Amino acid sequence: MSGETNGKRIDRDDFLSGWTAIPQKVRAASPVVHCITNYVTAPWCADAVLAAGAAPIMADEPDEMAEIASLAGALVLNIGTLRHSRLTAMRLAAETAKRLARPIVLDPVGAGASRLRTESALEIVREFRPAAVRGNISEILALAGRGGETRGVDASPSELVGRRRLADGARLAASLAEKWRCVVAISGPYDIVSDGARTCAVGGGDEMMTRITGCGCMESALLGAYLAAEPDAWKAAVAAMALMSLCGQRAARAVRQAGEGTASMRIRLLDAVSLFTGGELTAADVKIL
Amino acid sequence: MSGETNGKRIDRDDFLSGWTAIPQKVRAASPVVHCITNYVTAPWCADAVLAAGAAPIMADEPDEMAEIASLAGALVLNIGTLRHSRLTAMRLAAETAKRLARPIVLDPVGAGASRLRTESALEIVREFRPAAVRGNISEILALAGRGGETRGVDASPSELVGRRRLADGARLAASLAEKWRCVVAISGPYDIVSDGARTCAVGGGDEMMTRITGCGCMESALLGAYLAAEPDAWKAAVAAMALMSLCGQRAARAVRQAGEGTASMRIRLLDAVSLFTGGELTAADVKIL
Amino acid sequence: MSGETNGKRIDRDDFLSGWTAIPQKVRAASPVVHCITNYVTAPWCADAVLAAGAAPIMADEPDEMAEIASLAGALVLNIGTLRHSRLTAMRLAAETAKRLARPIVLDPVGAGASRLRTESALEIVREFRPAAVRGNISEILALAGRGGETRGVDASPSELVGRRRLADGARLAASLAEKWRCVVAISGPYDIVSDGARTCAVGGGDEMMTRITGCGCMESALLGAYLAAEPDAWKAAVAAMALMSLCGQRAARAVRQAGEGTASMRIRLLDAVSLFTGGELTAADVKIL
Repeated sequence: MSGETNGKRIDRDDFLSGWTAIPQKVRAASPVVHCITNYVTAPWCADAVLAAGAAPIMADEPDEMAEIASLAGALVLNIGTLRHSRLTAMRLAAETAKRLARPIVLDPVGAGASRLRTESALEIVREFRPAAVRGNISEILALAGRGGETRGVDASPSELVGRRRLADGARLAASLAEKWRCVVAISGPYDIVSDGARTCAVGGGDEMMTRITGCGCMESALLGAYLAAEPDAWKAAVAAMALMSLCGQRAARAVRQAGEGTASMRIRLLDAVSLFTGGELTAADVKIL
Repeated sequence: MSGETNGKRIDRDDFLSGWTAIPQKVRAASPVVHCITNYVTAPWCADAVLAAGAAPIMADEPDEMAEIASLAGALVLNIGTLRHSRLTAMRLAAETAKRLARPIVLDPVGAGASRLRTESALEIVREFRPAAVRGNISEILALAGRGGETRGVDASPSELVGRRRLADGARLAASLAEKWRCVVAISGPYDIVSDGARTCAVGGGDEMMTRITGCGCMESALLGAYLAAEPDAWKAAVAAMALMSLCGQRAARAVRQAGEGTASMRIRLLDAVSLFTGGELTAADVKIL
Repeated sequence: MSGETNGKRIDRDDFLSGWTAIPQKVRAASPVVHCITNYVTAPWCADAVLAAGAAPIMADEPDEMAEIASLAGALVLNIGTLRHSRLTAMRLAAETAKRLARPIVLDPVGAGASRLRTESALEIVREFRPAAVRGNISEILALAGRGGETRGVDASPSELVGRRRLADGARLAASLAEKWRCVVAISGPYDIVSDGARTCAVGGGDEMMTRITGCGCMESALLGAYLAAEPDAWKAAVAAMALMSLCGQRAARAVRQAGEGTASMRIRLLDAVSLFTGGELTAADVKIL
C-alpha cells in the first residue's frame, strides 16, 4: 500500500486519490472512443468499451478519418493485423486527435515481430505523441531498441516476476515514459505503469488471461475510454490496468470453480467489466515503486 | 393490439396474418444470405443468420461479387468500417441482386458521422432500391437530410420514447418509405416499421441491448434472412424487429436474474434467436400506428 | 476399431499409436501458428489455437509476411472473405513456409462458389504443396473438378452419411491425397482423413456444430497447431478431427441438457478444446477404411 521514492515514503492513496471515481466518470460521460484496430480482436475491443460505458467507433477508411476522429474523446491505435491502408488511416486520425488535443493510446501489437510493426509504432510515438503506450514486455523492449526476440504477440508468462524483474521493468517503463513524454504501461503478471515521475506495479490478474485472444487489446481500448474521462493519464492507466486485473482474477476464480474453460473466461471477464463500478479498485494490488 | 388509420380501426392480426410462420419458413428454405459488412460485428451477424436457420456468406472481393450474389436469396449491405474497396464490392453485388430481383437490406451504420457514409448510403438507396433500410434514429435522420448531430453508431437511448416521439418517428419512417419505395425500420426503445402504407411500432427489447456491439447489425442481417423467405417486406421487417425485441427482453431478464453482465447478454440473446420458433411472435408488443 | 486393407486386418491402434500425446505436445511446445484467414471467424480461430495451447498470429500485410512466417511453426491459409491483397500475403507467407519446410494447411472455404476461390485454392495446392487440405465435401469436390453445385460455405448435412457415401468419400480423399501428395480431410457427419496410403473415418460430432460459424475454420487452425507439433501429418489430422468431434459432441450434449442455444454451443465447444488433454482420444469413433 505504500512505497519509497527518493527516500520519501509515498502513500498509494495520495498518488491515486480519486481514481475509484474514474469508472463512473466514464459511464456518465460515455465518451466516443475511436479504435483503429485489428480484425481479430475488434469485436472484443468494441464490447469491452461498451461494457465500460463508453461508445466505440471502429472506422478505418482514410477518407473519413478527420470527421470520425473529431467526434471522439480518445483515439486507440492498435497495430495488430497492420495493413498499409490502415496505417494511413491511423496517421490521418492521429493528426486530427493531436490537433484537437485528444488523448491517443498506442498498442504496439507484435512490435519486434516485423520491421513494419516496430517502425510504424515508433513513428506514431515520434509524430503523434500518444498519451499512453501499452504493450507486453517483448513489444516494449522492441520499441526500446532492445528487441532481441519477440515471438510475436504474446509475452512470456514468467517475465517481470520477482523483485529484480520488477525493478528492471520499472526502470524501463520510467525511462521510456520520460523519453516519449507519455505514460508507458507494460502488461505482465505484474503490470508496470509509469509516467516518468510516478511508477507503480499492478498485481492480480490470472494466467488464464493469456489464453484468450485480445486481453491486451481490450486493456488498451479500455485505457482509451478512461483517458477520455480522466485528465491524469497515469491515474487513468493505473485504473485501467487494475480494472482488468481485478476482473480477470474474479473471472478466473469463477471459471475454475465451475470447471469451465477459456471461452467462459472471456464471457466472465467481459461480464465483470460491465458490472465494475469503481469502488472495487480499493482492493487492487497496486505497489508504488 | 389495434390502431386507427384514416378513421378505420385496424386489427393488428389482419395486418400481420401469417407472420408467425416466417421463422419456420426461414429454417425450411435455409436461404443463403450474402452479407457485405464490417469486421467488428461480422462474427455476430454470421452467427445470428445461422441461429435463425439461414446460411450466411460474407464475401466482399469485387472479383467474385457477381457469382456470390447470384447464389444468395438476399443481400445485406452494412456500411460499418466502410472502405472504398468494400463499397465497390457492394455496388457489384447490388447490381446482381437488383438484376435478379433479390431483396437488398441497407444498414447505414454511422450515417451522419462522415460524408462518405451518408453519401454512400444515399447512393445505395438511389441506385439499387433496397427492399428495406434499417437504422437508428440518428442514421435515418442523416439520410433524410435532417442530420444535425449523430455521435456515430449509437442512437441516444431516450429517443423516440413517449407518444409524441412515436408519432414523429412514424411520420419520418412513412415519408421516407414512400420516397424510397421500400420498408424503413427505425430501431429504438420502440422500433418503427413502415412501408408508407402500413406503419407500426414494436416495443419490448431492453436497454441492455445497447450495451453489446452489433444488435442493430444482427437485426439487419436477420432481416435479410426473413426477406429471403417472406415476399411481404413489411411483414418480414416487423417480424425481424419483433424477434430481436422478444429475444432481447428474454435474455436481459435472465441476465439480471443471474447477476451476469453484457457478455452473457450476447450469449443469451443469440441462444434465444436460435431457439425461436415463431409462435412467440403472438406475444410481441406491436402497435399499428 | 479395426478395418481391412488389401485383405490385411488393420488395427486402429497400430495406425494411431502415440496420437493421444499430440495435444500435450502442442501445449508443451506452444508453437506459433500463423493464420491468414477471413475476418468473420478470425476471433474464433485465434481463440481455438490458444485454447489448444499454441500461439496464434494473424498477420496478413504482404510487407511483413517473410518475417512473420519465419517465426511460425505452421501456416494456415483460409480463403474465406478472400481479397486479392490477402492472396498476395498468402503467396509470400507460403513461399517462406515452403522454403523453411514448415507445414501448411489449406482451408478452401467456399471453393466452388466463385472462380477466384476455386482457382486460388488450386494454385496454393500446386505451388506450395500443403501438408493438409481440409474442407467440406462441396469444397473438396470443387477442387477435384467435380464441382457441380456448392451453395457456398456449408456442406449439406446429409452428405457422406451411409456406408456407400463413406466409401465414395474415402476414394475421393485418397485419390486427391495421392495426386496432391498431402493429407486430405473432408469434414462432415463422418470426417474422412486420407494421405493416400491410410484412410479413416472419424465419427461423432453433432449437427449443432453446423449452426455456429467457423467450426471448419477452427478445425483447420487447430490442425495447423497439431501439425506444428506432430511430424506425421495424417496422425495430426486424425487427432484434430477427433478433437473437434469429441468436443462438439460433449458441448452439444450439455447445451441440450441445459436447454441452451447455439451461442452457448460455441462457448462450450471452445471450453472443451481448452480442457482437452489427449487421453480422451481413445474414446473417439475412428474407423480405418
